[in-house]
Amino acid sequence: MHNDLVAALDIGGTKIAGALVDGSGSILLRAQRPTPAREDGETVMRAVASVIGELAGSPLWLHVTAVGIGSAGPVDASAGTVSPVNVPGWRGFPLVDRVRAATGGLPVELVGDGVAMTAAEHWQGAARGYDDALCMVVSTGVGGGLVLGGKLHPGPTGNAGHIGHISVDLDGDPCPCGARGCVERIASGPNIARRAIERGWRPGPDGDASAAAVAAAAAAGDPVAIASFERAAQALAAGIAATATLVEIRIAVIGGGVAGAGEILFAPLRRALRDYATLSFVQGLVVAPALTGTDAGLLGAAAAASPGLRGETAATLNG
Amino acid sequence: MHNDLVAALDIGGTKIAGALVDGSGSILLRAQRPTPAREDGETVMRAVASVIGELAGSPLWLHVTAVGIGSAGPVDASAGTVSPVNVPGWRGFPLVDRVRAATGGLPVELVGDGVAMTAAEHWQGAARGYDDALCMVVSTGVGGGLVLGGKLHPGPTGNAGHIGHISVDLDGDPCPCGARGCVERIASGPNIARRAIERGWRPGPDGDASAAAVAAAAAAGDPVAIASFERAAQALAAGIAATATLVEIRIAVIGGGVAGAGEILFAPLRRALRDYATLSFVQGLVVAPALTGTDAGLLGAAAAASPGLRGETAATLNG
Repeated sequence: MHNDLVAALDIGGTKIAGALVDGSGSILLRAQRPTPAREDGETVMRAVASVIGELAGSPLWLHVTAVGIGSAGPVDASAGTVSPVNVPGWRGFPLVDRVRAATGGLPVELVGDGVAMTAAEHWQGAARGYDDALCMVVSTGVGGGLVLGGKLHPGPTGNAGHIGHISVDLDGDPCPCGARGCVERIASGPNIARRAIERGWRPGPDGDASAAAVAAAAAAGDPVAIASFERAAQALAAGIAATATLVEIRIAVIGGGVAGAGEILFAPLRRALRDYATLSFVQGLVVAPALTGTDAGLLGAAAAASPGLRGETAATLNG
Repeated sequence: MHNDLVAALDIGGTKIAGALVDGSGSILLRAQRPTPAREDGETVMRAVASVIGELAGSPLWLHVTAVGIGSAGPVDASAGTVSPVNVPGWRGFPLVDRVRAATGGLPVELVGDGVAMTAAEHWQGAARGYDDALCMVVSTGVGGGLVLGGKLHPGPTGNAGHIGHISVDLDGDPCPCGARGCVERIASGPNIARRAIERGWRPGPDGDASAAAVAAAAAAGDPVAIASFERAAQALAAGIAATATLVEIRIAVIGGGVAGAGEILFAPLRRALRDYATLSFVQGLVVAPALTGTDAGLLGAAAAASPGLRGETAATLNG
């Protein structure tokens, strides 16, 4: 059993990554292709098949017992389909069936990328040992996933934990999703930069107008840059507190580019959490940076496909 | 096994209700005392013991295998304690130990009243047959609970689903809980009435300034009364949509006095949900009034204590 491997696929708008992952979370083999995101659906699928083909060329492939897929969303795990916003050729694309066929009938597990990142952080990262956790990516968008009662909670369609699109400001700015005042609309990297620029912050000579540049300005004391991160932290705190109040999480793990701002984000976030996480059962909430980095998608896809391996790890930790 | 009974206790700020409940959800015997809410903790406990004593005087007591308690919150199921806001004599009161002692050592299950109501609606009410549900009470306060993956999700401390205190308006009015813009601060009965009065609505000759009176005025076409319910509906919609986006519920069941306003509340709520529940996996969300009425607390406490009985019911429904 300890020789069993999982084939993991991490499918995004930029690249399609694949790996063979063992029960300890080690990546034994990698393959990668750019995502032909502007091409038709079959062309995108050929890139996926090419990644699988490269992995299947290894003698290790004989030990693969399951395939785990983490995909940009929305996904529909119950239907086995994906419709990634940034891959217009895939709308309701039957990815699970196609990957099953391409792997000779292996069992295939599909989750959204936020859920995959959560599985990775619970297995190998900052949420390890926690039975109730929210894990988030704060980057170009804001995504997430949940661990409840010691188990990943993908929800029936594999999209649960989608904290970026809960409204924390019901009369707020319209969000591209159609709602108003979503966490993502306030706290994503592009929105942190937009808000700073609207209030008078200007990029340096290099022209870098990213959230990372705003973070650097905040670190240097720029009050407009600091205020933009504080507003993002406030929205994240309201969303995290809402999640804790609804499902009783003990830790919120935050990864993604914006989390790279470190204490520029985390210090005001911890302060704002005291304002919004007020009930007795949520006051002890821990906030921590993610640990699994760029391999989170692959590790999480592997973990989502191998609950037995994850259970084993949890038992070891708790025993 | 079908002869097994559960002793259910529903503990609120006004009354302490008890019942013997069978596996089909029938209430075979009832007992009730007023809650001596202003007295010391031992006096309140004597009222509980008196309810138990009356139930234990029945020959049916021989068939009781467990005790379920639904209590006004906050509760701490992990510690077995309760600290109901409206019963100041109980702060961290060890209710589970005391009830176990008073029943000769029966197993005791404690949940918050919102979780109990949810267990009742899942077992016997509008959430029956749904594996993923939010159930709410909208009344003097706003509470709730969750069913996830076919099972009650009380959370580690028994407080999960506490939708009344998630913020949907992060810059909004201060809430007694310490946060701002909580669902309860906008949508509870007293806040519906307060908002109507602030905007110029006046009670009729009977002086009734309740949310029910505002609902009657709204039904008669009063625009200020209609607007106050619409605002409450908007806050409820944002909270329900957030819950669906976070954990993938299929139905939101709403009970309590404010839900008694019927379509005055439900029509704008369904409209507002279209504005906030925008992602593909939450668009099919059903909203329905609660069905279990005043016995929800007792039925839910019984259900929370007898997962076997609940599982049996679910299997029957799905089979």
